[in-house]
This record gives sequence, C-alpha cells and structure tokens, in this order.
Amino acid sequence: VRYVIAAGVHGIFVLGSTGESPALSDQQRLEVMRTAIRSAAGQVPVLVGILDCSVRHAIEFGRAAEEAGADALVVVPPFYFVHTQNEILRYFRILRAALQLPISAYNAPTATKVHLAPQTVDALAQERLIVALKDSSADLSAFRQILLQQRSNDQLHILTGRQDLIDMELFMGAHGMVPGLANEAPQLFVRLYEAAQAKRWEEARAVQESVLPLLDVRLFSSDRVSRPAAAVGAHKTCLKLLGVIATNTMAAPWDSLGPEAEEGIAALLREHGIL
Amino acid sequence: VRYVIAAGVHGIFVLGSTGESPALSDQQRLEVMRTAIRSAAGQVPVLVGILDCSVRHAIEFGRAAEEAGADALVVVPPFYFVHTQNEILRYFRILRAALQLPISAYNAPTATKVHLAPQTVDALAQERLIVALKDSSADLSAFRQILLQQRSNDQLHILTGRQDLIDMELFMGAHGMVPGLANEAPQLFVRLYEAAQAKRWEEARAVQESVLPLLDVRLFSSDRVSRPAAAVGAHKTCLKLLGVIATNTMAAPWDSLGPEAEEGIAALLREHGIL
Amino acid sequence: VRYVIAAGVHGIFVLGSTGESPALSDQQRLEVMRTAIRSAAGQVPVLVGILDCSVRHAIEFGRAAEEAGADALVVVPPFYFVHTQNEILRYFRILRAALQLPISAYNAPTATKVHLAPQTVDALAQERLIVALKDSSADLSAFRQILLQQRSNDQLHILTGRQDLIDMELFMGAHGMVPGLANEAPQLFVRLYEAAQAKRWEEARAVQESVLPLLDVRLFSSDRVSRPAAAVGAHKTCLKLLGVIATNTMAAPWDSLGPEAEEGIAALLREHGIL
Amino acid sequence: VRYVIAAGVHGIFVLGSTGESPALSDQQRLEVMRTAIRSAAGQVPVLVGILDCSVRHAIEFGRAAEEAGADALVVVPPFYFVHTQNEILRYFRILRAALQLPISAYNAPTATKVHLAPQTVDALAQERLIVALKDSSADLSAFRQILLQQRSNDQLHILTGRQDLIDMELFMGAHGMVPGLANEAPQLFVRLYEAAQAKRWEEARAVQESVLPLLDVRLFSSDRVSRPAAAVGAHKTCLKLLGVIATNTMAAPWDSLGPEAEEGIAALLREHGIL
Repeated sequence: VRYVIAAGVHGIFVLGSTGESPALSDQQRLEVMRTAIRSAAGQVPVLVGILDCSVRHAIEFGRAAEEAGADALVVVPPFYFVHTQNEILRYFRILRAALQLPISAYNAPTATKVHLAPQTVDALAQERLIVALKDSSADLSAFRQILLQQRSNDQLHILTGRQDLIDMELFMGAHGMVPGLANEAPQLFVRLYEAAQAKRWEEARAVQESVLPLLDVRLFSSDRVSRPAAAVGAHKTCLKLLGVIATNTMAAPWDSLGPEAEEGIAALLREHGIL
Repeated sequence: VRYVIAAGVHGIFVLGSTGESPALSDQQRLEVMRTAIRSAAGQVPVLVGILDCSVRHAIEFGRAAEEAGADALVVVPPFYFVHTQNEILRYFRILRAALQLPISAYNAPTATKVHLAPQTVDALAQERLIVALKDSSADLSAFRQILLQQRSNDQLHILTGRQDLIDMELFMGAHGMVPGLANEAPQLFVRLYEAAQAKRWEEARAVQESVLPLLDVRLFSSDRVSRPAAAVGAHKTCLKLLGVIATNTMAAPWDSLGPEAEEGIAALLREHGIL
Repeated sequence: VRYVIAAGVHGIFVLGSTGESPALSDQQRLEVMRTAIRSAAGQVPVLVGILDCSVRHAIEFGRAAEEAGADALVVVPPFYFVHTQNEILRYFRILRAALQLPISAYNAPTATKVHLAPQTVDALAQERLIVALKDSSADLSAFRQILLQQRSNDQLHILTGRQDLIDMELFMGAHGMVPGLANEAPQLFVRLYEAAQAKRWEEARAVQESVLPLLDVRLFSSDRVSRPAAAVGAHKTCLKLLGVIATNTMAAPWDSLGPEAEEGIAALLREHGIL
Repeated sequence: VRYVIAAGVHGIFVLGSTGESPALSDQQRLEVMRTAIRSAAGQVPVLVGILDCSVRHAIEFGRAAEEAGADALVVVPPFYFVHTQNEILRYFRILRAALQLPISAYNAPTATKVHLAPQTVDALAQERLIVALKDSSADLSAFRQILLQQRSNDQLHILTGRQDLIDMELFMGAHGMVPGLANEAPQLFVRLYEAAQAKRWEEARAVQESVLPLLDVRLFSSDRVSRPAAAVGAHKTCLKLLGVIATNTMAAPWDSLGPEAEEGIAALLREHGIL
C-alpha cells in the first residue's frame, strides 16, 4: 500500500479479484481490509470489494468495512446463480438501503458470468444507487454505450478495469482506471493517465503498448495453473521480486507458478526496467 | 424434513442449490443445518452442502457441520474463478485432509460454470477423497462414462441430481437420485426408485413421465424472475401450499413469483393429485 | 452401400455431416448421390442430405436429388447466419412448397450452431412440412419433450443421430437411429434396434455399452486434427480397413489422421471383433 | 456501386456477410459480382467474398471471380464444421496455390463461429498467403496483438470490419475499414478516415459517435427477425429510401422488417441528415 501511494496513485482498491477476495475467509478479509486502511492512513481513499453471493452476508461485510473506516465499497452482481438484470438492480437497491458508504458497481463478467448491462448501469445511476462503475468486461461496444449514456451525468465516475486497452478507454471518455498491474508499476499508469488528461493520445498509446508484454499471463497458465491463478500469481511474484511482499504463495487450491515461471517474470520485469 | 422422512426417503440434503445456500449468511446456514439435524433425529442421514469459493471458509463451515452432528458433506468445485481440473482435485484433497466426515462431490456446472470431468471423478475415487457423486449436469454422455468407469468400484455411490431423466440414469447404472421435487412429492420418487430397483423399466418411465409437467419452471421465469429463482420459488410455493412451510419468500434479491404463478402451481399440483 | 444393405439396415442416408457434405462441391455431391442411388438399387430407401445456407441453392440441389431418384431429403436449418426459430420455420415452408420429396428435419446444433426447438418441431409437424426428425443434439431433455409432444402423432418418425445413448433414446420412445458407426458395424445396431423393439432393455444396453469404446474419437483429435475431422477420419479408416472403401483421405483442409491413429483404430476394431 | 464511388471510397467489397452471400445461389453470386465489376469500371478495385464450407467449391468460385475481372478475393475460414487453427491455415494454403488473385483473410467469428487467432494471422502473413486482413471480431485485445505483431510488416494491410469502434481501431494502428454502413453514408466514413490519417483523433471520435445511433439494429430485431437479418434489412431499407436500390426484400428465409421498422429507419436517417 505504501509502495503505490508513494508512486502517486489516487486510491486503493482491496479485496477485488486480483486480491483473491472470494478465496479468503471472512477473518482473512477483515485483516486485509484493516491493514490497508491503517497503511493508507488517510492519504488516499481505500475502496473495499464486496464479491458475494449472499445479500445478507454482503451487508454484514459492508458494515464491517464501514466500522473499519473504509471510504467506499465496490460491489459485483451476486454470482453462483445467474441473476436477471432486474434481480441485480434489486440487489444494489437492498445494499444501498442497508449501508452508509458510497457504492461502486463492478462489472466483472469473466468471474460473475453475468453482464451488467448498459441499461442497468443507467438505472443504478438514475436511482443514485452508485457513485462509480468499474468495468472489466471485454465488451468495448457496451462500455462506449455506457460512457455516452452517462456523458452528461457528472455524478457517476466511470473507470476501466482492463489493462490492455486503457489508452482507448480513456480516449472514449472513461474517467480513470483500476489496473492490477498498478501494484507493480504504478508510475507507468500514472504517466498514461496524465498523458490522456492532457490529450497527448500518441504518448498514452506508447505507454500502453510498453505495458502489454507484461500482461501476457497466458504464458504462465497451464493444465496445472488456471488463467486467473496465473494472473494473480504473476502479480504476487512481481511484488515479491520487488521486495513489496514476502511470499507469492496464493490461497489454495491455487498452486505456485513454479521456478521457471518466476524466472520468466523476473526477466520480463528486468527487460522493462521495473526490476 | 419430517414430511419427507414420513414418505420414506433415504436421506436429507440441506444447503444445496435448491436450498438457496449461496444466498444465505453463515448464521442462516448454521440455523438451517441444525434444524434439519434436529428434525431428522437420526432416522435418516443428513448431508450438508458446502458451496464455497474459499477453501478456508469451506473448512470452517465443514467443521461447524461436524460439530452440529451432520452425517456427510456435499462439496461443489470452488466457483467465481474458473479452476482447472487439477485445481479442483487439489481443493478436494485439502478438504479431505482437514475434515472428518465423508465427502460427496457435487457436479453442478450450471451454477459453478465448471464441469467435473470424468477423469477428475476417477482421480477423486482412486484417491478415496469422496464416497459419492451427485451429478446435476445435462451431459449424459459424460455421466455414462463415469458410471462405466466406476462400475467395478463399489466404494463410490453415484447419484443423479437431474429430475427429468432419472429413469434413464438409473437404467444406465446410477445408484440413486437427489431430486429437488422430492421435497413436495417424495412418494413419486420412492416409487420410481423401487420400480428401477426391480428392473420394471416401463413403470419407472411412466412415473418419470408423470412428473415432467411439474418440472417446467420455464413457465414461471421472466425478465423479473430468473430461471433458478423460478425453480426455487416453485418449490417453496409447493411446500407452502402443502402446509409444510409458512412462506414462499426467497432470499433477496429474488423476488416472489407473484399470485398468477402461485395459482398456476396450485393448479398443476391439483391436476397431479399432490394437492 | 452394398456392405450395409447386406447387413440389414433399413435405409441409407448420404451427404450428411459424416459424409462431409458441406466440404464437397456440387459436382461431388451429385456423384455421391447418384452412386448411392444406383447401388441401393431400390432395395432400401436413399435419403439425401441438404446442408445449406441458401434456400435457393437448397431448392436447386433438392430438385437434382428428385431427378436422380432419391427417396427423401434430410434438411438442417440454414447456417452461417444464426436464424430465429421463426426464420427456420419459414425455411422449411419454402422448401416444402418448392419440392416434391418427403422431408426430414435434422437437428445438428454442433454444426449449425442453432437448436431446432421442440415448439418448432411441433409447428413443422402440425403444418405437415416434415415426415421425420433426426436429432443429433446432446439435449436429451428437449428430445424427451419432443417425443412426448409427438407421441400421439403417428405421422412423424423420430430418429436419434447420437451414437452413445441410443438404448435410452429408444427407451424414451424414439423410433429408430441413424448412427454413423453403422457404416462399419451395421450388425451391432441392427441387434440393438431389435432388442429395443422387443423391450429387452438390458440387452439393448449391453450392445450399446459394447459400442462405446469405438466412439471415442477424442483419442484421435489434436491441434492438427479437429474433433469432426477425427470422427469422419475414424469412419473412413475403419471402412478402408474393412476393404469397403479404397482410401481414408478426407476433403481438404482436413489432414489425414496419420499412421499412429490408423493403428489405434485397427487395434480397436480387432478388439471388438469387427476386423 | 456508382453511389459509393462518387462519395470517394477506395474500394468495393461484394458478397460479404452484409451482401447476404451465403444465402445466395451460385448463379446469383455470379450476377452480383459481374454487375459490381461492370459498375466499378476500373475506377476502384472490386473485392469478392468467398464464404464457403468447401475448399473445392471455393476454388471454383474464386476462378469464376478471376475470369470476371475481380481485383482480389476475401476469404473466411470454412464453417459448418469447426476447424482448428492448423486446418484453417491449410485451407488458405490450398486456395493460395490454386488461385491467382491476391487474397484477404476475413475474421468473422459471429458467423463462422471460429476465431482467426493472432498466431494464425502471423503464419498467413509470413507464408505470404494473404495481402490483407479484415477483422470483424469484437476482440480488441486480439486485434491490438495482431496490429503490434505486424507493425513492421508493410506487406499486410489490416482493416477493421466493425462499425462502432473504428476511431479507436485506426488509433491502434489499423490501416482502414470496411463498414457496412458505408453503403449508405460513405461521406461520413471518408471523413472519419481522413481525420484519423491527419491524427485529428478528437474529430475522428466525434464522427464515430455521430454514427453510433445509426448502428443500433437491435431496435429492429425480434423473434421474427434475427439480429443479422435486422442488420442487413436496415442496410437495404436505407438504400431503398435513398433511391439506390429498388427493393429491401432479403433472401429467404429472412422476412421483411415491416413498415414500423422502415419508418423508424427513415426517421433515424432524417435525424442524421442522410435522407
């Protein structure tokens, strides 16, 4: 946390997908959250992920986050059962009524297997149920539709959660980004953001293109290590190599990437001047 | 619970998908489990579902089930992140090492979005990690492959979780079934099972065919009510109409089916002599 | 053709998926069809597949089949574009109006990427657009629904196109089957059919189970050879080994299975007493 | 054809998806192609689509295009059967060996249900099998990967076939576009292209955004009219309203959009100053 704050990020998001939140027990989640809030020490806001199947449990955890001093909540649609857009809207209504902190919606269809449709985002915005949207979907057409729909709505902050098309998403009108890789290379993303703010689009694109080789986690996935495990494991390995965290062990049943992958990641980081 | 025991079922499964388990908080799950165990009063075994994304949380809940006096655990592969078959196998190994009760694997790909492959079932059986399999997938080819693979393995009890093809699954060699509708019409399934045991296949088929109209929950799903909500809501409405439970309200964000659907369900039950 | 007639099959289906029809030019299709009709010599009916994206081209080819002396046409929904059920119904209406021969609908969603829904089959039957259905889908619930819907309709002949669940599909009420493997082992399927006709279900199941190892084409598929190429290639290799055809070369771009796969197939055939 | 040439387009593509090519008979395709070549009269190149399941038929049609005076061929991977990337590569090799005209690969996964992977595009480029790529997929990550892979390859012309993200695809490095809507509003796309060439990205984005409302064919699709039929029907209706073509009737089994949709389209065109 201190590492990324020093680099100039504008906020901290804990207990998202990259934070392995669904794989942690409640006790572990509380510890992660409290540590982050203590480390941020009020310098930047701390956003806490609520990735849950149970509205009742989500409320319980949201209240714990409020008590711990979090600044905002980031909520995915409930998963396991696939819900209709109306049911998703009801879920956000119930959380909004039960909790005090501002809520961001988080569209993560790869994990939740349900899309937060543009018309649902619009309903969430019009009912003032959310203050922000983090969109990690691969559907840029829908994302563009949301951006245009909400262009005149200055109450909704729209962020991208993807990492390989940030330059274009800022170009389309997104207000910011929540890239997992900002854990390792926060400066790069601060630079990309500033270039976009100044409409130096070619520079933004050049920074984005320089980041791309770091993102290819497919290199490290296999029958043994799933794609999401490879992604999270690559992050943890980077941070261990950078001396930020002590171990790259992931929550079970995810297995370690193995020494060969770790060397590959170290080589990548050196090649890009991060290590 | 007493209702179905009176009808002659051979066991009780609580906190599965039909039991809305993922939508409940831990506190609610513990209550459901304890009530079921108390009501069963040792007459039939009580199996408790562990539908979780976190291996650590799954272990905590499994231990609570052990303390409460459950007879066995029923475990789906972890969801949210999509795991490889190797990662699923590791998940079961970890649970097996940490818990005492017998474990059944539960293949529910509609909900978990991952298939428990025949070769994984075989590994689970060979390593003695599980004593039973409940298969609710629609893939009868894979189910047949599992049945033939395990035919000589008398340590693995293979059950179907589907409701519309039970006659055929018993005919293929399944040892039993876990039909959600047995909550409402346990006699029908007891009859179907006994016919199959006696190899009176035409009778088994006739019972199965008589059950089919009761299963068409698509009639009650809509933009407002998702398919799984319609399925669970139809169950709860049946049980309310039968006087078994007091309300058919489901865990939020699922909305009630509405009066029209309730009348439709009542008509169906009357037509089939259940009400 | 003469090989399978000698074994007692009740009809011949040419230019289906196993016959690589979509990969052939019009000229090649005409030759295949004429050869089959000549060889059948009126002993059994010859059904000709119309697997097309263009209704106009389908009509042209249907007329060519009529002139060549075919006995019936087997029609898949048009592919490339994904059509609605209403558009599929219109397609069959247009073909019915333009052609003389009886038409069978062929549900092959793996290839056409669209499902022929039970209510569409019902509309096709009620409008007397088809005399038969061949269903190769993996959806046994939908197939059962069709069988029950059409039970009192003695004008519609319902056949399964799957090969691994034939015993059960006959048990559910299917009238017959069109198994690709009948090209190599027609006696087995004649036996399976006769057992089912006599309601000797356990015998039907035993025959079906004995066939299963022959069906596992996944053994022969790879990055180089796709699943459908492996399936068709296994058929052609069998027939070459049996001396029925001269070569197992497939239509480009499908590559040959290679010598290792051919030996594997030969071993399988010997093991099952076919070679 | 004369309409769009007058507006300044750089080439004509006939018999693609929007041209309903798969739904036409060979005779109809030949007529469309010959008419286009005659009308273009050498002013701009005419590219002819080869959307086929059969390599033999594709060669026959490619030769007919060569005789008719086409300038290039545009080839999708074979469909119906789903091919591996290796099989797709073989398909292009066979066509390249049999035909004289330059070949463009066309990635249209919505229709062909198979993705032309970046490594396959790379192999096609390295073996000099293609001179251009038209990519209509929604996968911008893969498209960016292709663009970066081929950046130093000045022998491959990369075009986008999407219509709602053209500004960004040009920004990422695409060399041009093949938008269906250029049939109706060629000036808009010429303007968008020129803005991008001059790196006036904000202007390119403004033009793109102004086009978006014209693209929402979902408004006109229904149970009766599939999404692709609505898209093609909207094009034909536009062109009929503009007096370019005489009828908006589509190839069967596609039904007409109906008067309400036609009025909606006319209103849209008037609103955007096209009519």
